[in-house]
Amino acid sequence: MSGALKENSGKPSEVEYTHFKDLQALEMERGRLYETIVVTWDDSMVGNAAPIGVLCTGDDTVTLYLYQGTRTVENVLNNGRFTVNVTLDPLIFTDSTLGDLEEDMFSHYRDFLHLRGADAFFTAEVVSVKKLVKRDRFGESELHVVKARAGDVMRAESFRMALNRGIYAVIESLIAYTRAEFSDPLVLRERIAEMNRVARKVGGPREKEAMRRIIQALESKIS
Amino acid sequence: MSGALKENSGKPSEVEYTHFKDLQALEMERGRLYETIVVTWDDSMVGNAAPIGVLCTGDDTVTLYLYQGTRTVENVLNNGRFTVNVTLDPLIFTDSTLGDLEEDMFSHYRDFLHLRGADAFFTAEVVSVKKLVKRDRFGESELHVVKARAGDVMRAESFRMALNRGIYAVIESLIAYTRAEFSDPLVLRERIAEMNRVARKVGGPREKEAMRRIIQALESKIS
Ligand SMILES: Cc1cc2nc3c(=O)[nH]c(=O)nc-3n(C[C@H](O)[C@H](O)[C@H](O)COP(=O)(O)O)c2cc1C
Ligand SMILES: Cc1cc2nc3c(=O)[nH]c(=O)nc-3n(C[C@H](O)[C@H](O)[C@H](O)COP(=O)(O)O)c2cc1C
Repeated sequence: MSGALKENSGKPSEVEYTHFKDLQALEMERGRLYETIVVTWDDSMVGNAAPIGVLCTGDDTVTLYLYQGTRTVENVLNNGRFTVNVTLDPLIFTDSTLGDLEEDMFSHYRDFLHLRGADAFFTAEVVSVKKLVKRDRFGESELHVVKARAGDVMRAESFRMALNRGIYAVIESLIAYTRAEFSDPLVLRERIAEMNRVARKVGGPREKEAMRRIIQALESKIS
Repeated sequence: MSGALKENSGKPSEVEYTHFKDLQALEMERGRLYETIVVTWDDSMVGNAAPIGVLCTGDDTVTLYLYQGTRTVENVLNNGRFTVNVTLDPLIFTDSTLGDLEEDMFSHYRDFLHLRGADAFFTAEVVSVKKLVKRDRFGESELHVVKARAGDVMRAESFRMALNRGIYAVIESLIAYTRAEFSDPLVLRERIAEMNRVARKVGGPREKEAMRRIIQALESKIS
Protein backbone atom coordinates (compact mmCIF):
# COMPACT_ATOMS: atom_id res chain seq x y z
CA MET A 1 0.00 0.00 0.00
CA SER A 2 2.94 2.27 0.52
CA GLY A 3 4.37 1.98 -2.96
CA ALA A 4 1.35 2.25 -5.20
CA LEU A 5 -0.71 5.07 -3.79
CA LYS A 6 -4.16 3.65 -3.77
CA GLU A 7 -7.13 5.89 -4.35
CA ASN A 8 -8.52 7.45 -1.23
CA SER A 9 -11.98 6.08 -1.75
CA GLY A 10 -12.72 2.52 -2.76
CA LYS A 11 -11.11 -0.57 -1.40
CA PRO A 12 -7.49 -1.41 -2.17
CA SER A 13 -7.02 -4.17 -4.68
CA GLU A 14 -6.16 -7.68 -3.52
CA VAL A 15 -2.47 -8.39 -3.33
CA GLU A 16 -0.55 -11.63 -3.76
CA TYR A 17 1.42 -12.87 -0.79
CA THR A 18 4.32 -15.27 -0.50
CA HIS A 19 4.36 -17.52 2.55
CA PHE A 20 7.35 -17.52 4.91
CA LYS A 21 8.03 -19.44 8.05
CA ASP A 22 9.18 -16.74 10.45
CA LEU A 23 9.68 -13.05 11.19
CA GLN A 24 13.13 -12.97 9.64
CA ALA A 25 11.30 -12.67 6.31
CA LEU A 26 10.11 -9.24 7.52
CA GLU A 27 13.58 -8.38 8.85
CA MET A 28 12.08 -7.95 12.29
CA GLU A 29 14.82 -8.06 14.91
CA ARG A 30 14.56 -9.29 18.46
CA GLY A 31 14.38 -6.38 20.91
CA ARG A 32 12.92 -3.87 18.45
CA LEU A 33 9.37 -2.56 18.63
CA TYR A 34 7.48 -1.96 15.38
CA GLU A 35 4.45 0.22 14.74
CA THR A 36 1.92 -2.02 13.03
CA ILE A 37 -1.80 -2.35 12.44
CA VAL A 38 -3.26 -5.11 14.60
CA VAL A 39 -6.45 -6.61 13.19
CA THR A 40 -8.88 -8.42 15.48
CA TRP A 41 -12.52 -9.55 15.20
CA ASP A 42 -15.47 -10.28 17.43
CA ASP A 43 -17.67 -13.39 17.59
CA SER A 44 -19.53 -12.30 14.46
CA MET A 45 -16.24 -11.81 12.55
CA VAL A 46 -16.66 -8.03 12.51
CA GLY A 47 -13.14 -6.72 11.97
CA ASN A 48 -11.31 -4.04 13.92
CA ALA A 49 -7.98 -2.36 13.17
CA ALA A 50 -5.78 -0.28 15.45
CA PRO A 51 -2.17 0.93 15.43
CA ILE A 52 -0.31 -1.15 18.01
CA GLY A 53 3.35 -1.45 18.88
CA VAL A 54 4.63 -5.00 18.46
CA LEU A 55 7.83 -6.03 20.22
CA CYS A 56 9.76 -8.74 18.43
CA THR A 57 11.09 -11.19 21.02
CA GLY A 58 12.32 -13.98 18.75
CA ASP A 59 12.04 -15.58 15.31
CA ASP A 60 8.36 -16.35 15.84
CA THR A 61 7.40 -14.61 19.08
CA VAL A 62 6.07 -11.13 19.81
CA THR A 63 4.80 -9.22 22.82
CA LEU A 64 2.02 -6.64 22.79
CA TYR A 65 1.26 -4.13 25.54
CA LEU A 66 -2.45 -3.48 25.39
CA TYR A 67 -4.14 -0.76 27.39
CA GLN A 68 -7.53 -1.38 28.92
CA GLY A 69 -10.53 -0.01 27.11
CA THR A 70 -9.83 -0.67 23.46
CA ARG A 71 -11.68 -2.95 21.10
CA THR A 72 -8.35 -4.58 20.33
CA VAL A 73 -7.71 -5.80 23.87
CA GLU A 74 -11.31 -6.97 24.20
CA ASN A 75 -11.12 -9.04 21.00
CA VAL A 76 -7.66 -10.43 21.73
CA LEU A 77 -8.63 -11.57 25.22
CA ASN A 78 -11.87 -12.97 23.89
CA ASN A 79 -10.60 -15.17 21.07
CA GLY A 80 -6.85 -15.39 21.48
CA ARG A 81 -6.02 -14.63 17.87
CA PHE A 82 -5.11 -11.65 15.74
CA THR A 83 -3.02 -10.60 12.77
CA VAL A 84 -0.16 -8.13 12.73
CA ASN A 85 -0.16 -6.04 9.55
CA VAL A 86 2.72 -4.09 8.08
CA THR A 87 2.04 -0.87 6.16
CA LEU A 88 3.70 2.52 5.73
CA ASP A 89 0.49 4.21 4.63
CA PRO A 90 -0.16 7.32 6.77
CA LEU A 91 -3.89 7.29 6.03
CA ILE A 92 -4.34 3.73 7.30
CA PHE A 93 -2.65 4.66 10.57
CA THR A 94 -4.68 7.85 10.76
CA ASP A 95 -8.11 6.45 9.93
CA SER A 96 -7.72 3.46 12.26
CA THR A 97 -6.76 5.81 15.10
CA LEU A 98 -9.37 8.51 14.56
CA GLY A 99 -12.24 6.12 13.80
CA ASP A 100 -12.93 2.74 12.25
CA LEU A 101 -11.75 1.38 8.94
CA GLU A 102 -14.43 0.50 6.41
CA GLU A 103 -15.49 -3.13 6.41
CA ASP A 104 -14.04 -3.71 2.94
CA MET A 105 -10.56 -2.92 4.29
CA PHE A 106 -10.51 -6.40 5.86
CA SER A 107 -9.73 -9.57 4.01
CA HIS A 108 -9.94 -13.24 5.03
CA TYR A 109 -6.96 -15.53 5.37
CA ARG A 110 -7.85 -19.01 6.70
CA ASP A 111 -9.95 -18.19 9.77
CA PHE A 112 -8.16 -14.88 10.37
CA LEU A 113 -8.88 -11.36 9.19
CA HIS A 114 -6.10 -9.10 7.95
CA LEU A 115 -5.68 -5.66 6.47
CA ARG A 116 -6.44 -5.75 2.77
CA GLY A 117 -3.50 -4.57 0.72
CA ALA A 118 -1.02 -4.65 3.61
CA ASP A 119 2.64 -4.93 2.56
CA ALA A 120 2.89 -7.98 4.83
CA PHE A 121 1.02 -9.62 7.69
CA PHE A 122 1.35 -12.55 10.04
CA THR A 123 -1.13 -14.60 12.01
CA ALA A 124 -0.63 -14.77 15.77
CA GLU A 125 -1.97 -16.92 18.59
CA VAL A 126 -1.88 -15.79 22.20
CA VAL A 127 0.45 -17.82 24.43
CA SER A 128 0.01 -15.93 27.70
CA VAL A 129 -1.58 -12.80 29.13
CA LYS A 130 -0.39 -10.99 32.21
CA LYS A 131 -2.26 -8.07 33.67
CA LEU A 132 -0.36 -5.30 35.37
CA VAL A 133 -0.77 -1.74 36.50
CA LYS A 134 1.57 0.78 34.90
CA ARG A 135 2.47 4.02 36.62
CA ASP A 136 4.10 6.72 34.52
CA ARG A 137 3.89 10.47 33.94
CA PHE A 138 0.45 9.98 32.41
CA GLY A 139 -0.89 8.41 35.62
CA GLU A 140 -1.96 4.87 36.39
CA SER A 141 -3.27 2.50 33.77
CA GLU A 142 -4.15 -1.15 33.45
CA LEU A 143 -2.07 -2.96 30.91
CA HIS A 144 -2.22 -6.45 29.42
CA VAL A 145 1.10 -7.97 28.46
CA VAL A 146 0.19 -10.36 25.65
CA LYS A 147 2.80 -12.88 24.49
CA ALA A 148 1.97 -14.49 21.18
CA ARG A 149 3.40 -16.89 18.64
CA ALA A 150 3.56 -15.98 14.95
CA GLY A 151 2.09 -18.55 12.55
CA ASP A 152 2.01 -17.86 8.83
CA VAL A 153 4.12 -14.94 7.69
CA MET A 154 2.85 -13.45 4.42
CA ARG A 155 4.83 -10.93 2.38
CA ALA A 156 3.75 -8.96 -0.68
CA GLU A 157 5.96 -7.57 -3.45
CA SER A 158 5.36 -4.06 -2.02
CA PHE A 159 6.98 -4.93 1.31
CA ARG A 160 9.96 -2.71 2.20
CA MET A 161 10.22 -2.79 5.98
CA ALA A 162 8.25 -2.76 9.19
CA LEU A 163 8.01 0.71 10.71
CA ASN A 164 10.45 1.34 13.54
CA ARG A 165 10.70 4.80 15.11
CA GLY A 166 14.31 4.39 16.26
CA ILE A 167 16.05 6.01 13.31
CA TYR A 168 13.57 8.91 13.37
CA ALA A 169 14.27 9.59 17.03
CA VAL A 170 17.97 9.80 16.17
CA ILE A 171 17.35 12.11 13.18
CA GLU A 172 15.09 14.39 15.24
CA SER A 173 17.75 14.60 17.94
CA LEU A 174 20.47 15.41 15.42
CA ILE A 175 18.39 18.17 13.87
CA ALA A 176 17.76 19.58 17.35
CA TYR A 177 21.50 19.30 18.02
CA THR A 178 22.47 21.29 14.89
CA ARG A 179 20.06 24.05 15.98
CA ALA A 180 21.20 24.06 19.59
CA GLU A 181 22.57 27.64 19.41
CA PHE A 182 19.10 28.94 18.59
CA SER A 183 17.23 26.89 21.17
CA ASP A 184 16.19 27.23 24.78
CA PRO A 185 18.48 24.70 26.53
CA LEU A 186 15.63 23.47 28.73
CA VAL A 187 13.32 22.80 25.80
CA LEU A 188 16.17 21.20 23.88
CA ARG A 189 17.10 18.87 26.77
CA GLU A 190 13.48 17.83 27.27
CA ARG A 191 13.12 17.09 23.55
CA ILE A 192 16.29 15.00 23.42
CA ALA A 193 15.29 13.16 26.61
CA GLU A 194 11.95 12.28 24.99
CA MET A 195 13.70 11.02 21.84
CA ASN A 196 16.07 8.99 24.02
CA ARG A 197 13.07 7.34 25.67
CA VAL A 198 11.70 6.46 22.23
CA ALA A 199 15.04 5.06 21.03
CA ARG A 200 15.46 2.95 24.17
CA LYS A 201 11.92 1.63 23.89
CA VAL A 202 11.82 0.77 20.19
CA GLY A 203 15.36 0.84 18.86
CA GLY A 204 18.25 -1.56 18.44
CA PRO A 205 21.82 -1.23 19.74
CA ARG A 206 22.92 1.25 17.05
CA GLU A 207 20.07 3.68 17.81
CA LYS A 208 20.81 3.49 21.54
CA GLU A 209 24.52 4.08 20.96
CA ALA A 210 23.72 7.00 18.62
CA MET A 211 21.58 8.65 21.32
CA ARG A 212 24.35 8.16 23.88
CA ARG A 213 26.80 9.98 21.59
CA ILE A 214 24.34 12.78 20.82
CA ILE A 215 23.55 13.42 24.49
CA GLN A 216 27.23 13.47 25.36
CA ALA A 217 28.06 15.92 22.55
CA LEU A 218 25.10 18.10 23.46
CA GLU A 219 26.06 18.34 27.10
CA SER A 220 29.51 19.63 26.21
CA LYS A 221 28.01 22.00 23.62
CA ILE A 222 25.42 23.71 25.84
CA SER A 223 27.03 23.55 29.28
CA MET B 1 24.56 -0.82 5.96
CA SER B 2 21.16 -0.91 7.59
CA GLY B 3 20.59 -4.61 7.17
CA ALA B 4 23.93 -6.11 8.11
CA LEU B 5 25.06 -4.32 11.25
CA LYS B 6 28.67 -3.61 10.54
CA GLU B 7 31.16 -3.53 13.34
CA ASN B 8 31.52 -0.20 15.03
CA SER B 9 35.20 0.04 14.40
CA GLY B 10 36.83 -0.85 11.11
CA LYS B 11 35.64 0.11 7.69
CA PRO B 12 32.49 -1.39 6.21
CA SER B 13 33.09 -3.98 3.53
CA GLU B 14 32.76 -3.03 -0.12
CA VAL B 15 29.32 -3.59 -1.57
CA GLU B 16 28.25 -4.45 -5.11
CA TYR B 17 26.02 -1.94 -6.85
CA THR B 18 23.69 -2.25 -9.78
CA HIS B 19 23.51 0.72 -12.12
CA PHE B 20 20.16 2.41 -12.85
CA LYS B 21 19.27 5.33 -15.00
CA ASP B 22 17.14 7.47 -12.71
CA LEU B 23 15.76 8.10 -9.23
CA GLN B 24 12.75 5.87 -9.76
CA ALA B 25 15.11 2.99 -8.96
CA LEU B 26 15.30 4.44 -5.44
CA GLU B 27 11.53 5.03 -5.34
CA MET B 28 12.20 8.71 -4.77
CA GLU B 29 9.07 10.71 -5.54
CA ARG B 30 8.87 14.22 -6.87
CA GLY B 31 7.96 16.68 -4.11
CA ARG B 32 9.32 14.59 -1.24
CA LEU B 33 12.43 15.50 0.73
CA TYR B 34 14.76 12.71 1.86
CA GLU B 35 17.35 12.73 4.63
CA THR B 36 20.58 11.54 3.03
CA ILE B 37 24.32 11.72 3.47
CA VAL B 38 25.85 14.13 0.96
CA VAL B 39 29.50 13.39 0.19
CA THR B 40 31.76 16.13 -1.19
CA TRP B 41 35.50 16.59 -1.55
CA ASP B 42 38.04 19.37 -1.78
CA ASP B 43 40.76 19.97 -4.40
CA SER B 44 42.94 17.28 -2.83
CA MET B 45 40.06 14.76 -2.91
CA VAL B 46 39.70 14.80 0.88
CA GLY B 47 36.18 13.56 1.47
CA ASN B 48 33.49 15.12 3.64
CA ALA B 49 30.11 13.71 4.66
CA ALA B 50 27.11 15.51 6.15
CA PRO B 51 23.42 14.74 6.62
CA ILE B 52 21.55 16.87 4.09
CA GLY B 53 17.90 16.98 3.02
CA VAL B 54 17.50 16.30 -0.69
CA LEU B 55 14.30 17.35 -2.43
CA CYS B 56 13.36 15.18 -5.38
CA THR B 57 12.07 17.43 -8.16
CA GLY B 58 11.90 14.96 -11.04
CA ASP B 59 13.21 11.64 -12.37
CA ASP B 60 16.77 12.91 -12.42
CA THR B 61 16.71 16.27 -10.67
CA VAL B 62 17.11 17.29 -7.05
CA THR B 63 17.33 20.50 -5.05
CA LEU B 64 19.48 21.06 -1.96
CA TYR B 65 19.13 23.92 0.50
CA LEU B 66 22.59 24.54 1.89
CA TYR B 67 23.25 26.87 4.79
CA GLN B 68 26.32 29.05 4.80
CA GLY B 69 29.29 27.91 6.82
CA THR B 70 29.48 24.17 6.20
CA ARG B 71 32.21 22.24 4.45
CA THR B 72 29.49 20.78 2.23
CA VAL B 73 28.42 24.11 0.73
CA GLU B 74 32.04 25.16 0.29
CA ASN B 75 32.92 21.98 -1.61
CA VAL B 76 29.74 21.97 -3.70
CA LEU B 77 30.21 25.59 -4.78
CA ASN B 78 33.87 24.95 -5.44
CA ASN B 79 33.66 21.91 -7.72
CA GLY B 80 30.01 21.53 -8.70
CA ARG B 81 29.80 17.83 -7.95
CA PHE B 82 28.75 15.59 -5.11
CA THR B 83 27.13 12.25 -4.36
CA VAL B 84 23.88 11.64 -2.52
CA ASN B 85 24.10 8.54 -0.34
CA VAL B 86 21.22 6.52 1.07
CA THR B 87 21.60 4.81 4.43
CA LEU B 88 19.40 4.06 7.43
CA ASP B 89 22.34 3.66 9.79
CA PRO B 90 21.89 5.90 12.85
CA LEU B 91 25.63 5.93 13.61
CA ILE B 92 26.54 7.25 10.16
CA PHE B 93 24.07 10.10 10.58
CA THR B 94 25.33 10.73 14.10
CA ASP B 95 29.05 10.61 13.46
CA SER B 96 28.84 12.80 10.35
CA THR B 97 26.87 15.41 12.33
CA LEU B 98 28.94 15.42 15.51
CA GLY B 99 32.30 15.25 13.77
CA ASP B 100 33.98 13.86 10.68
CA LEU B 101 33.79 10.36 9.26
CA GLU B 102 37.04 8.42 9.05
CA GLU B 103 38.80 8.63 5.72
CA ASP B 104 38.21 4.93 5.02
CA MET B 105 34.46 5.56 5.04
CA PHE B 106 34.79 7.05 1.55
CA SER B 107 35.07 5.07 -1.62
CA HIS B 108 35.82 6.08 -5.21
CA TYR B 109 33.38 5.79 -8.07
CA ARG B 110 34.67 7.24 -11.36
CA ASP B 111 35.89 10.70 -10.29
CA PHE B 112 33.40 10.93 -7.43
CA LEU B 113 33.61 9.95 -3.78
CA HIS B 114 30.73 8.17 -2.08
CA LEU B 115 29.93 6.66 1.30
CA ARG B 116 31.42 3.20 1.52
CA GLY B 117 28.76 0.58 2.18
CA ALA B 118 25.82 2.91 1.47
CA ASP B 119 22.57 1.15 0.52
CA ALA B 120 22.52 3.29 -2.62
CA PHE B 121 24.08 6.45 -3.99
CA PHE B 122 23.88 8.67 -7.04
CA THR B 123 26.28 11.10 -8.63
CA ALA B 124 25.10 14.68 -9.08
CA GLU B 125 26.25 17.71 -11.04
CA VAL B 126 25.21 21.22 -10.12
CA VAL B 127 22.95 22.92 -12.67
CA SER B 128 22.33 26.22 -10.90
CA VAL B 129 22.91 27.96 -7.58
CA LYS B 130 20.77 30.73 -6.18
CA LYS B 131 21.69 32.58 -3.03
CA LEU B 132 18.97 33.86 -0.76
CA VAL B 133 18.40 35.08 2.75
CA LYS B 134 15.97 33.05 4.79
CA ARG B 135 14.10 34.54 7.72
CA ASP B 136 12.41 32.17 10.13
CA ARG B 137 11.94 31.67 13.86
CA PHE B 138 15.66 30.89 14.14
CA GLY B 139 16.62 34.28 12.75
CA GLU B 140 18.22 35.27 9.46
CA SER B 141 20.48 32.93 7.52
CA GLU B 142 22.14 32.79 4.13
CA LEU B 143 21.02 29.87 2.06
CA HIS B 144 22.18 28.42 -1.26
CA VAL B 145 19.50 26.79 -3.35
CA VAL B 146 21.41 24.23 -5.38
CA LYS B 147 19.69 22.53 -8.30
CA ALA B 148 21.46 19.45 -9.57
CA ARG B 149 21.08 16.65 -12.08
CA ALA B 150 21.50 13.01 -11.06
CA GLY B 151 23.90 10.96 -13.17
CA ASP B 152 24.58 7.32 -12.30
CA VAL B 153 22.17 5.79 -9.81
CA MET B 154 23.74 2.86 -7.95
CA ARG B 155 21.74 0.49 -5.78
CA ALA B 156 22.97 -2.29 -3.50
CA GLU B 157 21.12 -5.43 -2.44
CA SER B 158 20.70 -3.90 1.04
CA PHE B 159 18.66 -0.95 -0.29
CA ARG B 160 15.18 -0.70 1.23
CA MET B 161 14.18 2.96 0.94
CA ALA B 162 15.42 6.49 1.21
CA LEU B 163 14.63 8.06 4.58
CA ASN B 164 11.59 10.32 4.58
CA ARG B 165 10.35 11.84 7.83
CA GLY B 166 6.74 12.20 6.64
CA ILE B 167 5.32 8.96 8.04
CA TYR B 168 7.14 9.58 11.29
CA ALA B 169 5.54 13.02 11.69
CA VAL B 170 2.14 11.40 11.22
CA ILE B 171 2.86 8.60 13.74
CA GLU B 172 4.13 11.10 16.32
CA SER B 173 1.01 13.19 15.88
CA LEU B 174 -1.25 10.16 16.25
CA ILE B 175 0.48 9.08 19.44
CA ALA B 176 0.10 12.63 20.78
CA TYR B 177 -3.56 12.51 19.73
CA THR B 178 -4.26 9.26 21.62
CA ARG B 179 -2.74 10.84 24.75
CA ALA B 180 -4.56 14.14 24.37
CA GLU B 181 -6.57 13.70 27.60
CA PHE B 182 -3.36 13.62 29.63
CA SER B 183 -1.66 16.53 27.87
CA ASP B 184 -1.46 20.26 28.24
CA PRO B 185 -3.48 21.50 25.22
CA LEU B 186 -0.93 24.22 24.49
CA VAL B 187 2.01 21.83 24.43
CA LEU B 188 -0.01 19.37 22.38
CA ARG B 189 -1.00 21.99 19.79
CA GLU B 190 2.60 23.20 19.47
CA ARG B 191 3.83 19.61 18.97
CA ILE B 192 1.24 18.85 16.31
CA ALA B 193 1.95 22.18 14.57
CA GLU B 194 5.64 21.26 14.43
CA MET B 195 4.86 17.82 13.00
CA ASN B 196 2.56 19.46 10.45
CA ARG B 197 5.44 21.69 9.34
CA VAL B 198 7.61 18.59 8.92
CA ALA B 199 4.93 16.72 6.94
CA ARG B 200 4.34 19.71 4.65
CA LYS B 201 8.05 20.17 4.07
CA VAL B 202 9.07 16.56 3.42
CA GLY B 203 5.92 14.53 2.84
CA GLY B 204 3.73 13.51 -0.05
CA PRO B 205 -0.01 14.04 -0.51
CA ARG B 206 -1.01 11.19 1.82
CA GLU B 207 1.05 12.54 4.73
CA LYS B 208 -0.38 16.02 4.21
CA GLU B 209 -3.93 14.70 4.08
CA ALA B 210 -3.30 12.59 7.21
CA MET B 211 -2.13 15.68 9.13
CA ARG B 212 -5.20 17.60 7.98
CA ARG B 213 -7.47 14.88 9.38
CA ILE B 214 -5.52 14.64 12.65
CA ILE B 215 -5.63 18.39 13.26
CA GLN B 216 -9.35 18.51 12.53
CA ALA B 217 -10.06 15.58 14.90
CA LEU B 218 -7.85 17.10 17.57
CA GLU B 219 -9.55 20.46 17.45
CA SER B 220 -12.95 18.90 18.06
CA LYS B 221 -11.47 16.70 20.82
CA ILE B 222 -9.79 19.40 22.89
CA SER B 223 -11.98 22.43 22.26
C1 LIG C 1 1.58 4.48 16.49
C2 LIG C 1 0.63 4.04 17.57
C3 LIG C 1 0.97 2.98 18.40
C4 LIG C 1 0.10 2.53 19.38
N1 LIG C 1 0.47 1.48 20.17
C5 LIG C 1 -0.39 1.02 21.11
C6 LIG C 1 -0.03 -0.10 21.93
O1 LIG C 1 1.06 -0.68 21.80
N2 LIG C 1 -0.93 -0.53 22.86
C7 LIG C 1 -2.15 0.07 23.03
O2 LIG C 1 -2.93 -0.38 23.87
N3 LIG C 1 -2.52 1.15 22.27
C8 LIG C 1 -1.66 1.63 21.32
N4 LIG C 1 -2.02 2.71 20.55
C9 LIG C 1 -3.33 3.34 20.77
C10 LIG C 1 -4.45 2.59 20.06
O3 LIG C 1 -4.18 2.43 18.67
C11 LIG C 1 -5.75 3.40 20.20
O4 LIG C 1 -6.13 3.37 21.54
C12 LIG C 1 -6.86 2.90 19.32
O5 LIG C 1 -7.88 3.88 19.29
C13 LIG C 1 -7.50 1.61 19.80
O6 LIG C 1 -8.52 1.27 18.87
P1 LIG C 1 -9.58 0.13 19.11
O7 LIG C 1 -10.51 0.57 20.22
O8 LIG C 1 -10.26 0.00 17.78
O9 LIG C 1 -8.82 -1.12 19.49
C14 LIG C 1 -1.15 3.18 19.57
C15 LIG C 1 -1.48 4.24 18.74
C16 LIG C 1 -0.61 4.69 17.76
C17 LIG C 1 -1.01 5.84 16.90
C1 LIG D 1 18.88 15.05 9.28
C2 LIG D 1 19.67 16.31 8.99
C3 LIG D 1 19.40 17.03 7.85
C4 LIG D 1 20.13 18.18 7.53
N1 LIG D 1 19.84 18.86 6.38
C5 LIG D 1 20.56 19.97 6.07
C6 LIG D 1 20.30 20.68 4.86
O1 LIG D 1 19.40 20.31 4.09
N2 LIG D 1 21.07 21.77 4.58
C7 LIG D 1 22.07 22.18 5.42
O2 LIG D 1 22.73 23.17 5.09
N3 LIG D 1 22.34 21.53 6.58
C8 LIG D 1 21.62 20.43 6.92
N4 LIG D 1 21.89 19.76 8.08
C9 LIG D 1 22.98 20.24 8.94
C10 LIG D 1 24.33 19.76 8.49
O3 LIG D 1 24.37 18.35 8.35
C11 LIG D 1 25.38 20.18 9.53
O4 LIG D 1 25.48 21.57 9.52
C12 LIG D 1 26.74 19.54 9.30
O5 LIG D 1 27.50 19.70 10.47
C13 LIG D 1 27.50 20.14 8.15
O6 LIG D 1 28.74 19.43 8.08
P1 LIG D 1 29.95 19.88 7.13
O7 LIG D 1 30.51 21.15 7.70
O8 LIG D 1 30.89 18.72 7.22
O9 LIG D 1 29.40 20.09 5.75
C14 LIG D 1 21.15 18.63 8.40
C15 LIG D 1 21.42 17.89 9.57
C16 LIG D 1 20.70 16.75 9.87
C17 LIG D 1 21.00 16.00 11.13
